[in-house]
Amino acid sequence: MDQIVDFNPEDFDVTVQPGVTRKGLNHFLKDHGLWFPVDPGADASLCGMTATSASGTNAVRYGTMRENVLNTEIVLADGRIFCTAGNGRRSKKSSAGFNLTNLFVGSEGSLGFITKTTLKIYGIPEMMVSAVCAFPTVKAAVDVCVQVLQSNIPIARIELMDDVAMEMCNNHNKLDYEVAPTLFLEFHGTEESVKSQAKFAAEIADYNGGSQFRWAYETEERNRLWKARHDIYWTVLQSNPGCRAIVTDVCVPITCLPDLIAQTKSDIQQSGIIGPCLGHVGDGNFHTFLVFNPNKPEEFKKAENLASRMANRALDLNGTCTGEHGIGIGKMAYLEKEMGPLGIEIMKSIKRTLDPHWLMNPGKIFSSA
Amino acid sequence: MDQIVDFNPEDFDVTVQPGVTRKGLNHFLKDHGLWFPVDPGADASLCGMTATSASGTNAVRYGTMRENVLNTEIVLADGRIFCTAGNGRRSKKSSAGFNLTNLFVGSEGSLGFITKTTLKIYGIPEMMVSAVCAFPTVKAAVDVCVQVLQSNIPIARIELMDDVAMEMCNNHNKLDYEVAPTLFLEFHGTEESVKSQAKFAAEIADYNGGSQFRWAYETEERNRLWKARHDIYWTVLQSNPGCRAIVTDVCVPITCLPDLIAQTKSDIQQSGIIGPCLGHVGDGNFHTFLVFNPNKPEEFKKAENLASRMANRALDLNGTCTGEHGIGIGKMAYLEKEMGPLGIEIMKSIKRTLDPHWLMNPGKIFSSA
Ligand SMILES: Cc1cc2nc3c(=O)[nH]c(=O)nc-3n(C[C@H](O)[C@H](O)[C@H](O)COP(=O)(O)OP(=O)(O)OC[C@H]3O[C@@H](n4cnc5c(N)ncnc54)[C@H](O)[C@@H]3O)c2cc1C
Ligand SMILES: Cc1cc2nc3c(=O)[nH]c(=O)nc-3n(C[C@H](O)[C@H](O)[C@H](O)COP(=O)(O)OP(=O)(O)OC[C@H]3O[C@@H](n4cnc5c(N)ncnc54)[C@H](O)[C@@H]3O)c2cc1C
Repeated sequence: MDQIVDFNPEDFDVTVQPGVTRKGLNHFLKDHGLWFPVDPGADASLCGMTATSASGTNAVRYGTMRENVLNTEIVLADGRIFCTAGNGRRSKKSSAGFNLTNLFVGSEGSLGFITKTTLKIYGIPEMMVSAVCAFPTVKAAVDVCVQVLQSNIPIARIELMDDVAMEMCNNHNKLDYEVAPTLFLEFHGTEESVKSQAKFAAEIADYNGGSQFRWAYETEERNRLWKARHDIYWTVLQSNPGCRAIVTDVCVPITCLPDLIAQTKSDIQQSGIIGPCLGHVGDGNFHTFLVFNPNKPEEFKKAENLASRMANRALDLNGTCTGEHGIGIGKMAYLEKEMGPLGIEIMKSIKRTLDPHWLMNPGKIFSSA
Repeated sequence: MDQIVDFNPEDFDVTVQPGVTRKGLNHFLKDHGLWFPVDPGADASLCGMTATSASGTNAVRYGTMRENVLNTEIVLADGRIFCTAGNGRRSKKSSAGFNLTNLFVGSEGSLGFITKTTLKIYGIPEMMVSAVCAFPTVKAAVDVCVQVLQSNIPIARIELMDDVAMEMCNNHNKLDYEVAPTLFLEFHGTEESVKSQAKFAAEIADYNGGSQFRWAYETEERNRLWKARHDIYWTVLQSNPGCRAIVTDVCVPITCLPDLIAQTKSDIQQSGIIGPCLGHVGDGNFHTFLVFNPNKPEEFKKAENLASRMANRALDLNGTCTGEHGIGIGKMAYLEKEMGPLGIEIMKSIKRTLDPHWLMNPGKIFSSA
């Protein structure tokens, strides 16, 4: 099941089976001047991305899987098959009854198998330009993000990396960026529009004490830049041979980010654990990679405690314990705190309705029936 | 219950009670340089817009209610209260368990009362410019739309009106637009970016045989233009005193629009009924207003038959019977065709789970339990 089963370039939609990955799809689309922008870095399957409601660096402009899945084909626990928006339907929007598509997006395989996903696709912009800019504080970088959004610039990417992440990124990729809180930005559009967006953003950055923008105009240069950003997880592991990492994924209202990141960084420092921070700052979502040696249980415990304090802090700030990775088995306790007992009961009752024998991905999302 | 209960300008979110309307909210937001762009024309309540998954003219850039509701507070049939994304939560995205928010968005009051809705808000763009352009055929106008989307221009509005709608619009508003298939476009952004987008779109229009763009730069002029567009429903009724209209709302893959509109127009002409067509063409969504005299049952029957053929045609083209108005009582039969028996059964089973005694808005969406 690795086929692109339906492709309608002028309607901007494509339907794929579980074996098709993001990179595979984009390789295919490129020749048609099209692309699928949701980009979690990893070359995940598009049905897996649908199942986890993935997002990533382009979400601030193009949305997450929630906004980009038009329909899914589902095999239910009892073997019956149906399409969440009706068989073969692919209109850009619909108000026809309950939104079953978005019930299955993010359901982590616990309501049914996704055997097809129908996605919105986009024209490749005439021009894409990336820039890197260092800031004296995380707060200054977040302020830039708020002001850029406030000005309604259709920014495509705005990513934050902290000093620890920048240092690893430099060392591993032989780069020489300043070791400071840094924004990676990207602008998409016509040539004039990109120039105008970028000029505007550069002024905002300057006003907030940012360094000069370092530009990447060429595709190759841009790809190198984003590869360094995306590979940070592997960079962290390779910089710490034999180690593994707990990846956290909280998401909070944007203005809560500076304090949350400051508290998190001081907590990490005190623990003695290595933990770079990076964030999809336009969405208020940030990750830390909490490094531990699997042979040292006390390190794992420390990392786990850090992750737990971070999730609880995010929940106390009206945020979520997972912006894009899902609950799985690691975040069940936080989900209970996040949703409250009635919210959990409603989720479980829906699970029971569609999967009465609790056969689909049991033990995930909820600890018990 | 007419209060704005929470407002976080720098986080770009606001929470309102059922008595707050779209215009009321935008009046409040304006002083903060912010706005809520989902615009169905009517000054609906924001909780009603949430309940019907409304969209309108700005959806092509800013999305529909589905993409803009972050959380809702719900009173269930048994009186219990909960929040679909957890109490008070307002992060821009989340992968925490099932997406209950989007289950309630568009549920037409049939799963619970919405007593609060938390919305994404946006910075008012530095510049907004509107343009009007006539075309020899509907196909040419739709081709322009496809090519504009293909070029990744972040167009804010792209609306189609047919010759019949334009004539009514001219007569009623003392305007002198060409009586032909016409696009109403709008561009948002920085000054340079808007100019560049508009230039690009004008070239595409020219290439497809469009007339010169007629521009509206000033707020007042733009408002007059969009008022004429939005008021078309009232214009139709006032142009036909004593009459009423069936409003259709199909949505199909964009490339299907020209044929669908051509067939619809010829069907309307043959029936002798008055029926202007207008569409949110960027989403493949279009409406007709099928005028009938309530004292002439045969006219109503004709209009109903036209609407029925139109819905069936849209369904045969992989579309939906309702892009943004919902099922209500008028479209139940089409919903069954659209979703198929298993899709309907799943929707009903969810209804039964949350509202076992079928108390919430009974007789809507589904004809029977
Ligand atoms: C290095 C790295 C960086 C990442 N960065 C990001 C990021 O920035 N943003 C982000 O959103 N995510 C990120 N992720 C997570 C990534 O998005 C998910 O791993 C991916 O979406 C899951 O797809 P997969 O094909 O790998 O699925 P798997 O890992 O195989 O499965 C993931 C879950 O989905 C379910 N599932 C998979 N396929 C189906 C199906 N066909 N039907 C039903 N259920 C299914 C599985 O049961 C499981 O619960 C990152 C992952 C890695 C490894
Ligand atoms: C002239 C005109 C033009 C329009 N154009 C468009 C358009 O271009 N695009 C578009 O999308 N829509 C359009 N509409 C439809 C409009 O979006 C809906 O009428 C509106 O969203 C409904 O909100 P309301 O406050 O009027 O709700 P009502 O009409 O009072 O209710 C509509 C439905 O929502 C339910 N409901 C209302 N409030 C709640 C609540 N608090 N909790 C639970 N359920 C509730 C009701 O039970 C009912 O089923 C248009 C309407 C008019 C009159």
